[in-house]
Amino acid sequence: MGTRDDAWLHSWIGSSDADHIRVAGRDLPSEVMGRLTLTQLSYLLVTHREPTAAQGRLVDAVLVSLADHGLTPSALASRLTYTGAPESIQGAVAAGLLGAGSVFLGPAGDTAHFLAETLALGGGEAELDHDELRAVAAAAVERRRAAGLRVPGLGHPVHKGGDPRTPRIYALAEAEGLLGQHLRLLATVAEMQALASGNDLPVNGAGAGAAALLDAGVPATAVRGMALIARTAGLVAHLVEEAESPIGMPLWLEIEERANDVADGGDEV
Amino acid sequence: MGTRDDAWLHSWIGSSDADHIRVAGRDLPSEVMGRLTLTQLSYLLVTHREPTAAQGRLVDAVLVSLADHGLTPSALASRLTYTGAPESIQGAVAAGLLGAGSVFLGPAGDTAHFLAETLALGGGEAELDHDELRAVAAAAVERRRAAGLRVPGLGHPVHKGGDPRTPRIYALAEAEGLLGQHLRLLATVAEMQALASGNDLPVNGAGAGAAALLDAGVPATAVRGMALIARTAGLVAHLVEEAESPIGMPLWLEIEERANDVADGGDEV
Amino acid sequence: MGTRDDAWLHSWIGSSDADHIRVAGRDLPSEVMGRLTLTQLSYLLVTHREPTAAQGRLVDAVLVSLADHGLTPSALASRLTYTGAPESIQGAVAAGLLGAGSVFLGPAGDTAHFLAETLALGGGEAELDHDELRAVAAAAVERRRAAGLRVPGLGHPVHKGGDPRTPRIYALAEAEGLLGQHLRLLATVAEMQALASGNDLPVNGAGAGAAALLDAGVPATAVRGMALIARTAGLVAHLVEEAESPIGMPLWLEIEERANDVADGGDEV
Amino acid sequence: MGTRDDAWLHSWIGSSDADHIRVAGRDLPSEVMGRLTLTQLSYLLVTHREPTAAQGRLVDAVLVSLADHGLTPSALASRLTYTGAPESIQGAVAAGLLGAGSVFLGPAGDTAHFLAETLALGGGEAELDHDELRAVAAAAVERRRAAGLRVPGLGHPVHKGGDPRTPRIYALAEAEGLLGQHLRLLATVAEMQALASGNDLPVNGAGAGAAALLDAGVPATAVRGMALIARTAGLVAHLVEEAESPIGMPLWLEIEERANDVADGGDEV
Repeated sequence: MGTRDDAWLHSWIGSSDADHIRVAGRDLPSEVMGRLTLTQLSYLLVTHREPTAAQGRLVDAVLVSLADHGLTPSALASRLTYTGAPESIQGAVAAGLLGAGSVFLGPAGDTAHFLAETLALGGGEAELDHDELRAVAAAAVERRRAAGLRVPGLGHPVHKGGDPRTPRIYALAEAEGLLGQHLRLLATVAEMQALASGNDLPVNGAGAGAAALLDAGVPATAVRGMALIARTAGLVAHLVEEAESPIGMPLWLEIEERANDVADGGDEV
Repeated sequence: MGTRDDAWLHSWIGSSDADHIRVAGRDLPSEVMGRLTLTQLSYLLVTHREPTAAQGRLVDAVLVSLADHGLTPSALASRLTYTGAPESIQGAVAAGLLGAGSVFLGPAGDTAHFLAETLALGGGEAELDHDELRAVAAAAVERRRAAGLRVPGLGHPVHKGGDPRTPRIYALAEAEGLLGQHLRLLATVAEMQALASGNDLPVNGAGAGAAALLDAGVPATAVRGMALIARTAGLVAHLVEEAESPIGMPLWLEIEERANDVADGGDEV
Repeated sequence: MGTRDDAWLHSWIGSSDADHIRVAGRDLPSEVMGRLTLTQLSYLLVTHREPTAAQGRLVDAVLVSLADHGLTPSALASRLTYTGAPESIQGAVAAGLLGAGSVFLGPAGDTAHFLAETLALGGGEAELDHDELRAVAAAAVERRRAAGLRVPGLGHPVHKGGDPRTPRIYALAEAEGLLGQHLRLLATVAEMQALASGNDLPVNGAGAGAAALLDAGVPATAVRGMALIARTAGLVAHLVEEAESPIGMPLWLEIEERANDVADGGDEV
Repeated sequence: MGTRDDAWLHSWIGSSDADHIRVAGRDLPSEVMGRLTLTQLSYLLVTHREPTAAQGRLVDAVLVSLADHGLTPSALASRLTYTGAPESIQGAVAAGLLGAGSVFLGPAGDTAHFLAETLALGGGEAELDHDELRAVAAAAVERRRAAGLRVPGLGHPVHKGGDPRTPRIYALAEAEGLLGQHLRLLATVAEMQALASGNDLPVNGAGAGAAALLDAGVPATAVRGMALIARTAGLVAHLVEEAESPIGMPLWLEIEERANDVADGGDEV
């Protein structure tokens, strides 16, 4: 065991033996505990660098913006799972996370990949000026529209007049000196999309959050995962509340009664 | 809709309408984003109070201590799930969380309930002095032993000589002025357990973490959930790494080959 | 690789190499496909024996009795998960299964363990006569009551006057010549429980199903799992229907609106 | 409640009240139990028709072909989850199902949608003759290749010389009089793909199974779900075995030791 052939088993994330626990290449008790917040450790684990204070603050602002939105399908699924299996909190949290797919939360990851790929096509690492950014954004919007695809990060089913998180994220990024290419590109993409379609869709909170994470140094491949950490915090809170003020059980009883009434009166399909 | 009968649908966690998002009774953009870290928001959501700076730091120290321990069964399950469904990050995270049951991570919640119940039996809110604490701890150990149950929060299969996180948690709690009844009770329980059984089992990291969360003001019902937030951070990091340096696929191929070799040589059961 | 040390890697369930797939010690294409139903294979996999025709029929009767009960918390969680992640059917099925815990479906497994343990205490393999069965049942009821525990397999929140599945399971078992010790014990336990408590709780469908599986030769350790196979069939049907006639999305929108109305009128907690 | 507005709450799958349980529009005790197998009920629930005897047998043959393949990533994830949470069987089954994504099992659903869409483009309901089928298949292969997409249902990483399930599925469908357009199209697609690419990829078992389900009358939207029912049976069997002959725990200990050896010798990343 432990031969050269086992190189594929190497993980930088963590390891432990009888006397030590290492996380992110650091001694957990002396170099992480009491020194890094959970957000800073999360950043370190996916970037292999500790965040600057400004980066850490911006990442926290994005994470808290994604943690919860009330009785969403995800929170309801979590609570209804708790109704059937209250002994298994991890199962109820898992059920809630499973709804964080292409419709909810997924868009944050989609936006991140879209922005990163668009910038890569537009010249890679180099800083783009205003006109270059407009050209790159217009081309990206055009490619999506030609392929019949929505532009990610824009529009919201509830916040039609504008997502209240978006201006706050831009302001915080500006204040931290982190308003970079990804946030600027996304704002420009929204402009170009409005010009091309005649339909003004403002940048949504998931999109702005994704762009801010990228400007804070988080890789696009980690954005969807970072959003899941935030969402877990919201789901855990719902379950603590559910144990005291159940919604799952009365919701079920009401739905069953209403469904039976429909069944009684309605035709069989 | 919205009648008095719907009072059971009230959730304090969050809500949103076209122009606002409220989380924890606060306006998300102006009162949470840029003001609270994810850890502070998590604390607020389960206690309905913002943590003091000291409480927030101690909670963060506990959360980072629970985030990851390398290639645990949970991390392996998460990576193997990614192997089959790389398009569904939330599924791979959920699979990893599902292993956080009675054997792993569950002990944190068990310890929290044990400590809270023991103190409740021992006099409730009142501060216990040294002798009272010893009497309460001895009685609790005796009850567990009489019922044939392990005392939670003690011993570790790997860290037999002592969990390296435990002294650090006690030191940090001391430094923050938060070394309270729960941490003191747990240390006393370990002493009493050693006296009663002759088998010295030191306080483990999950137990010390649980006691520290209680002393920081987190209710026992939320401890297991808080641990899940921390673990999500570790699992997300494993999946970002898995996408670059796969362990799931080579692990499967090796296991399948070895299992086939056994099957060839072995008797059918 | 493939050394004697790898014996722990042996699995009887299945294996494959370039040219063969073996399941349950049989060549899958020639010895399983076209010969065994899914129910018969499920039985074989957990008992290591093919069921007799009668056993197979009784197991099928139990499985279809557990497959679905309409818009339960489990089905609702599955549909709400689909709302957020329609691309990940496996995630929506998994979310539904996660609610099959101690409150729902779990009781089938609890009843199986209770019956198997009660018979083991009462003499093991030997067939008990009527009086012996009454004595064993009375003692078991007494032990549960003394410990403050419910007797599993009895009573139902909805089917208060009697679960319509129960008499059917007993009749089918009788007709198949499989009405054995476990079904008889459960009926006797219900009698003894009514005598002891004065509260008549009829055998419920989950309990009768569990007893029938045991009498059909399924081990107690597999009963809860068999119920999960059945439930998966119901959840898959809900998701196929959800794709055509969504319940998750309109349910969410209704709940959110009602919750907002409550929040507006109500005091903050 | 039960107003016309609640029509969206109607589900055909199941319902129950105090005295009745209905599944698939039938009285569960008298019209389903003892009359339909789990496979027949599954078919009924997704097609709204009971299968013919021949359809039922072909569907069972496909389901047993998809139930298990030994220590796959999915089975390993399930067993490792059991290691951490043995009290929560539903969680371990759910973890295993979560790996049934785009890489494993997902291809069955992809093939079903590909075949159904290809036939819809090729003329809909009308039976195609040999030459028409070749033209339709060639065009479909060409479209996939032009879009840079793999043709689903072909090739297998392990069964390179041909999947042993494929000829068996074709023979069983032939024997049942159910070898229809979907199975014929898939075989023709394999031919056309070999011609177009010069690389002979035989029809795999997941693809042949999907085509057989379609020819048996299962809608394409239900194929992936049907495969999940089958896989649940395999996972349940793995967990029953895991409780007796653990693989999860020794696998973890071995991996941890090997990973630590690598970490000791290797450079930090």
